[in-house]
Amino acid sequence: MKCKLTFLGTGTSQGIPVIGCKCEVCTSTDPRDKRYRSSALVEYGDITMLIDCGPDFRSQMLRAGVEHLDAVLLTHNHKDHTGGLDDLRSFNLLEHKPVNIFCEDYVEHSMEQEYSYAFTEPHYPGVPEWYVRHIDGQHPFRVEPNEILPTLVWESGVGYHKVQSDISEMKRKGVEVIPIQGYHNLDKTFSVLGFRFGQIAYLTDMRCLEEGELEKLKGLKALTLNCVGRKLHHSHFCLDQAIELAQRIGAENTYLTHLAHALGKHEDLEASLPEGIHAAYDGLVIESN
Amino acid sequence: MKCKLTFLGTGTSQGIPVIGCKCEVCTSTDPRDKRYRSSALVEYGDITMLIDCGPDFRSQMLRAGVEHLDAVLLTHNHKDHTGGLDDLRSFNLLEHKPVNIFCEDYVEHSMEQEYSYAFTEPHYPGVPEWYVRHIDGQHPFRVEPNEILPTLVWESGVGYHKVQSDISEMKRKGVEVIPIQGYHNLDKTFSVLGFRFGQIAYLTDMRCLEEGELEKLKGLKALTLNCVGRKLHHSHFCLDQAIELAQRIGAENTYLTHLAHALGKHEDLEASLPEGIHAAYDGLVIESN
Repeated sequence: MKCKLTFLGTGTSQGIPVIGCKCEVCTSTDPRDKRYRSSALVEYGDITMLIDCGPDFRSQMLRAGVEHLDAVLLTHNHKDHTGGLDDLRSFNLLEHKPVNIFCEDYVEHSMEQEYSYAFTEPHYPGVPEWYVRHIDGQHPFRVEPNEILPTLVWESGVGYHKVQSDISEMKRKGVEVIPIQGYHNLDKTFSVLGFRFGQIAYLTDMRCLEEGELEKLKGLKALTLNCVGRKLHHSHFCLDQAIELAQRIGAENTYLTHLAHALGKHEDLEASLPEGIHAAYDGLVIESN
Repeated sequence: MKCKLTFLGTGTSQGIPVIGCKCEVCTSTDPRDKRYRSSALVEYGDITMLIDCGPDFRSQMLRAGVEHLDAVLLTHNHKDHTGGLDDLRSFNLLEHKPVNIFCEDYVEHSMEQEYSYAFTEPHYPGVPEWYVRHIDGQHPFRVEPNEILPTLVWESGVGYHKVQSDISEMKRKGVEVIPIQGYHNLDKTFSVLGFRFGQIAYLTDMRCLEEGELEKLKGLKALTLNCVGRKLHHSHFCLDQAIELAQRIGAENTYLTHLAHALGKHEDLEASLPEGIHAAYDGLVIESN
């Protein structure tokens, strides 16, 4: 099945340029040195998914002209990956559907704290309408078209009413996604999920992977890995670790994301990488058949 | 004392363009029809303040080239006004200071829920360092230079240490800000603060004002008022109400902000308004001596 992944953001949590920074990366005029917070759009079969929904979400949707989302997959609960969830309201209005969100249960707990108004019944008019579904690192899951969700009908001053559609046919559609169990720290207490869509896999914000997960990453056309800098880091792969892991996994091509300005200008970074390993940049598209 | 107010965003909670919208406003090529979420930079005497810190905060700082903030004033706790608070981390790095945040106590309670990691001791390395100070609608408050705050010294892998500066001289500096008590609803259960800086006042997200607050708004050179659309709205002034209130207050000029696409193109809206009443736009600067 065809898969197309578009990098909507490839920067670390502060983005590039960093506010007020005068380094050669932050003042570069190369558009590849302008990085929104890390996120990707995945079009897999007939299903369109967003991976992570950080603070640049609205700007990313406008820049890429995205007008349809079947689901949002969240890797973990940090703000640079969840800070834009309120802005999913635009898709409620546009598609007249709640937005399917797939995440681990601890991520939903954070959302309940951080967006408590979206979980309060009755909903204040205009709050985001989400349909949260729990996933974990062990079990592949199915993402269906968003038509299976109830239709939202707006009543001014009151809010949305939900009207259930006939979903008998829709439930047979959809795609299977394979989760990859990683961790944002070395002692494996902070779970982060990666995702495999056929021959493309996307991993970010990992410091290590669960033993055995490399088995799930065989035969990839393209792999995305996080790399925050050159120095050893407590919560991310550094450059040497990312290159070593990329070579162990052996995808045809590996793309580094979640990049910080300390890694240097895109052009120089790209030129310094081993064959088959690349620096991603905002707008880059990768495809598999 | 001189005051300069720069509109960093003048859009309602979804901004303009609205994702996926094909109306003449959302597809306009007039840069005044591109509106980030409402926010303003106020330079009053020697003090630089940000009013509200929504999801477009980082983009607004980069666009306006802001590299120094003495304080952030929050009008209320809605996401389109607070969603960017995590990104204040950039100013911790840039200025080696926590960021002064002035808000009502209920707004801090929301922040404690929505950014719990910023209130957990010891701080996870890299979380935003804020210094929250409570204000209310009744008492004028003083905003001092951010030099009065402790200096942040970074230790890799650990986080910031705080070193107190000699503040004896700094405490005499600063400016006085007069809060204006408004409400986001008609039954006055949802407090929103406006602010007066000498001859300029900024009010947003109000549906009504506390009786007697008009007294505090006499003799203004410039007033900012929220206006979300033409129809009656449960939580904002509509156009007729905003115009009527502007005329009662009688500032030399009034600027409407928090504008939605339903109000039409900037050029047409501006031409339709009575003398002395204007539609604000991103980048507009107003000044008083």
